[in-house]
Amino acid sequence: MPSSPFDTHLDRNAANYAALTPVSFMAWAAEVYPERVSGIHGSRRFTWRETYARCRRLASGLAKIGVTRNVTASVMLANTPEMFEAHFGIAMAGGVINTLNTRLDADALAFMLRHGDAKVLITDRSFSAVMAKAIDGLAITVIDVDDPEYDGPGECIGTLEYEALLAEGDPEFPWRPPADEWDAIALSYTSGTTGDPKGVVTHHRGAYLAAIGNILAWDMPSFPVYLWSVPMFHCNGWCHAWAVAARAGTNVYLRKVDPLAMLELIARHRVTHFGGAPIVHSMLLNAPEECFAGISHTVNCYIAGAAPPVAVIEAMERRGFRISHIYGLTETYGPATMCSKHPKWDELPTAERARLNGRQGVRFSVEEGMTVLNPETMLPVPADGETIGEVMYRGNITMKGYLKNPTATEAAFAGGWFHTGDLAVMHPDGYIKIKDRSKDIIISGGENISSLEVEDAIHRHPKVMACAVVAQPDPKWGETPVAFVELKNGADATESEIIAHCRENMAHFKAPKRVIFGPVPRTSTGKIQKFVLRERVRSAAAIDV
Amino acid sequence: MPSSPFDTHLDRNAANYAALTPVSFMAWAAEVYPERVSGIHGSRRFTWRETYARCRRLASGLAKIGVTRNVTASVMLANTPEMFEAHFGIAMAGGVINTLNTRLDADALAFMLRHGDAKVLITDRSFSAVMAKAIDGLAITVIDVDDPEYDGPGECIGTLEYEALLAEGDPEFPWRPPADEWDAIALSYTSGTTGDPKGVVTHHRGAYLAAIGNILAWDMPSFPVYLWSVPMFHCNGWCHAWAVAARAGTNVYLRKVDPLAMLELIARHRVTHFGGAPIVHSMLLNAPEECFAGISHTVNCYIAGAAPPVAVIEAMERRGFRISHIYGLTETYGPATMCSKHPKWDELPTAERARLNGRQGVRFSVEEGMTVLNPETMLPVPADGETIGEVMYRGNITMKGYLKNPTATEAAFAGGWFHTGDLAVMHPDGYIKIKDRSKDIIISGGENISSLEVEDAIHRHPKVMACAVVAQPDPKWGETPVAFVELKNGADATESEIIAHCRENMAHFKAPKRVIFGPVPRTSTGKIQKFVLRERVRSAAAIDV
Repeated sequence: MPSSPFDTHLDRNAANYAALTPVSFMAWAAEVYPERVSGIHGSRRFTWRETYARCRRLASGLAKIGVTRNVTASVMLANTPEMFEAHFGIAMAGGVINTLNTRLDADALAFMLRHGDAKVLITDRSFSAVMAKAIDGLAITVIDVDDPEYDGPGECIGTLEYEALLAEGDPEFPWRPPADEWDAIALSYTSGTTGDPKGVVTHHRGAYLAAIGNILAWDMPSFPVYLWSVPMFHCNGWCHAWAVAARAGTNVYLRKVDPLAMLELIARHRVTHFGGAPIVHSMLLNAPEECFAGISHTVNCYIAGAAPPVAVIEAMERRGFRISHIYGLTETYGPATMCSKHPKWDELPTAERARLNGRQGVRFSVEEGMTVLNPETMLPVPADGETIGEVMYRGNITMKGYLKNPTATEAAFAGGWFHTGDLAVMHPDGYIKIKDRSKDIIISGGENISSLEVEDAIHRHPKVMACAVVAQPDPKWGETPVAFVELKNGADATESEIIAHCRENMAHFKAPKRVIFGPVPRTSTGKIQKFVLRERVRSAAAIDV
Repeated sequence: MPSSPFDTHLDRNAANYAALTPVSFMAWAAEVYPERVSGIHGSRRFTWRETYARCRRLASGLAKIGVTRNVTASVMLANTPEMFEAHFGIAMAGGVINTLNTRLDADALAFMLRHGDAKVLITDRSFSAVMAKAIDGLAITVIDVDDPEYDGPGECIGTLEYEALLAEGDPEFPWRPPADEWDAIALSYTSGTTGDPKGVVTHHRGAYLAAIGNILAWDMPSFPVYLWSVPMFHCNGWCHAWAVAARAGTNVYLRKVDPLAMLELIARHRVTHFGGAPIVHSMLLNAPEECFAGISHTVNCYIAGAAPPVAVIEAMERRGFRISHIYGLTETYGPATMCSKHPKWDELPTAERARLNGRQGVRFSVEEGMTVLNPETMLPVPADGETIGEVMYRGNITMKGYLKNPTATEAAFAGGWFHTGDLAVMHPDGYIKIKDRSKDIIISGGENISSLEVEDAIHRHPKVMACAVVAQPDPKWGETPVAFVELKNGADATESEIIAHCRENMAHFKAPKRVIFGPVPRTSTGKIQKFVLRERVRSAAAIDV
């Protein structure tokens, strides 16, 4: 093919091309809104000018101790200013941020530090005990964060102190975008509900687009006040750290999710946005009515992490919180799907609206495609709201792959789509509804029972705080549903009451055969650990049989 | 350097990478909001499902007649649905859209068609007379658009008719993103206020990011109702065609900018957004008061194309229109700078707010950098609001370069920055204020006089509709300012009245020495043709001397 004039003397150069990186959002915020408040943490306040300078100081300090392209810096931090700064400073140095789940044990943490070849660890003093064990025998430079807002136990365990590192750093550190926007920006280990943790590698381009995707999907205007209820260790806070910078917003930090503290911060700082798993919303709903008194403005909440019970969506809306239901995975930079609302839905009865809003929805505009395929044939399931297939994605907010795991990477991307492992139906309007993870479908007498559907029914019982339904091996039916139910404070209910409630609200064969009361075990990210429950019923069944 | 695990088995593939293209926004809008209204043109209405199908039909029709990668398809269209569709359909076929300025003469148009190697022309019947001349002797396939909303003169001149082409096209045409997001998407000729038109080549990546940049800068929420007062032939409608798709908005088409028609459409369709040159806003302001009566909602307006007189900004704000002052060039995909408002400005007196808002402002967050440099030394001017330098940009919303013009491209990108040719000062808060194009600075007795500053003063005179100030050669002072003034309908003023008004409002040496009343000549995009005026005073001066 002869070369075209459109391809001649029209190459990339320093003036017309820059690698996409979400770090650039902070440079912009500091340039345009230097005096605006970037963050509030207890009595500490920062402006964007200050936060940008702190990040550059951090980057220069990290560069001095060897953080550069493809070098992993792990962080074990609560949702503090330092955690936010790490999301920019490590990338400015060229490194890869690996956020550690603060609820894990030393063995799991040690696995991640080793697998990710972490050269540096930034750790909050409150996690010293577990981190001291986790780094045992590792050659790693440890930087301690001693948060003035934290006065609990824990010794400094490192050779460097965060504020001292910053004090010696260069506030004008000349960071540059990565040489290639495909360069890794983050390494995040999956929470391992189904097997060994895998190291999800994401890149600068994707992080940039994911931040924008969240802003667009959420209609997030300039200057949001963002409450950090979503752990930043979880998918980089769903990429919201970078999104807040892109909107010159204000971060309201939070070391620990506590419903009363959240409501107090929402009222005091007029928080406009926050996110959380359904349990966070359930906890908020159970707070005393007077805690909502000071909140007169609109609060936008992302609800995600698991399909929210319709009852929770309904109740939050009645409280005046505007709920956006989202779905995604660590592999898709957090949210990549949203139940985008149609204005015409506003005219529908509440229950119908809740049903529509209870679906996971449609892809973010920055993701190229999302669909429900039969994983055997790789053909789309009919959009009938009934046929179950696997949710698959493709596009720019899909990970690079799993670190040092070409087999898993190849399997995840088989056929040109990212396989989520989540089962769903496609509705006629193009909205998906998750039915379950593959393992969470209960097959009883040849009929598929969605454990989510059963959970949704149980959740509507006024005494129920949380619940989980799993399959129990059954000699006659193959499997039957068994429900684990956590009641509200002071509430009391019987097994037959819960079962009767289910039978009133769904096909009888779907109702649980057993109900077990007590706390429901959760992963560190708030997901219910169904594998633990499955183990429990399997042992119980073994004894029964 | 040994290869890193972060670079190993983690390559781009079909599941995790897609070339950025603004065409994808329409696919998304049609998938998520198929039933929403995408466009209104007189009695015609379209949904996003229909518009997407029409664009795919267009793409398939164009593909059949040879439009493919790097093939130019020129369009000579008013702001109609077909013009919008061309912005997607041509790109879906892989081609390059070349929007022709509908106010140009046949010679200028012929130059562009030849220089751009246009293989296809889509032309509105109303432009047949000039286009028949322009294509004389060219081997080009002509597609006529016969807009039912147009009933004026003009014959079809082509071999194909637009609706017939669509009728035969494939509504499911399997378009793909470009092989490389750097591929050309548009070719736009500069309006040539200072010399020969140059062919600005832009690419898919930049168009995607520019669309997002506009959304972010404008805080454009979902479902805007966008009135097409900005000609789509001008920088692809400032990339707003693509932005409206990304927000699933509604296009309100407009064949001709007419203030009464605009106000009527704004009221009837509750238009939320539109843009225009200052003259468009001046025309609106001069409409009878009753035309504003039906407008009770907030209307957001971009004002650009030339620095708006502060008086216009003030008056529009009093009318309840929310003005965003933007600046950019064809080379930066239209707007790349915006006078982003700081909430604290709201507390200032109107005049001070207007002064702050009258500046061009700060870069879009999607552009890597904007600065004011001394073009000789390439060093930043001091941010003192006084020292004049040249506005320069770098980043992803800067063009690929000029077609078949490596010399101009190289000059434009010298030193790693795109040189705008516009002169400005940098204020201490990082906001730029355009002082003039290089040629528009008047040097009088060794003092620099900004012609814009003089124009701003004249514009505040209540009888003035429009004005332009240029240098007149002067044997004593070198140059002196001369003002061309267009009065409002029915208004009457004398030279001495205007000069006295200026002397009251600025340093006396800056006041014009002469005032010439009459219509001010404009380019087809509404920019005042200062070179015409300069010629006029030069000839006059020659006679005087």
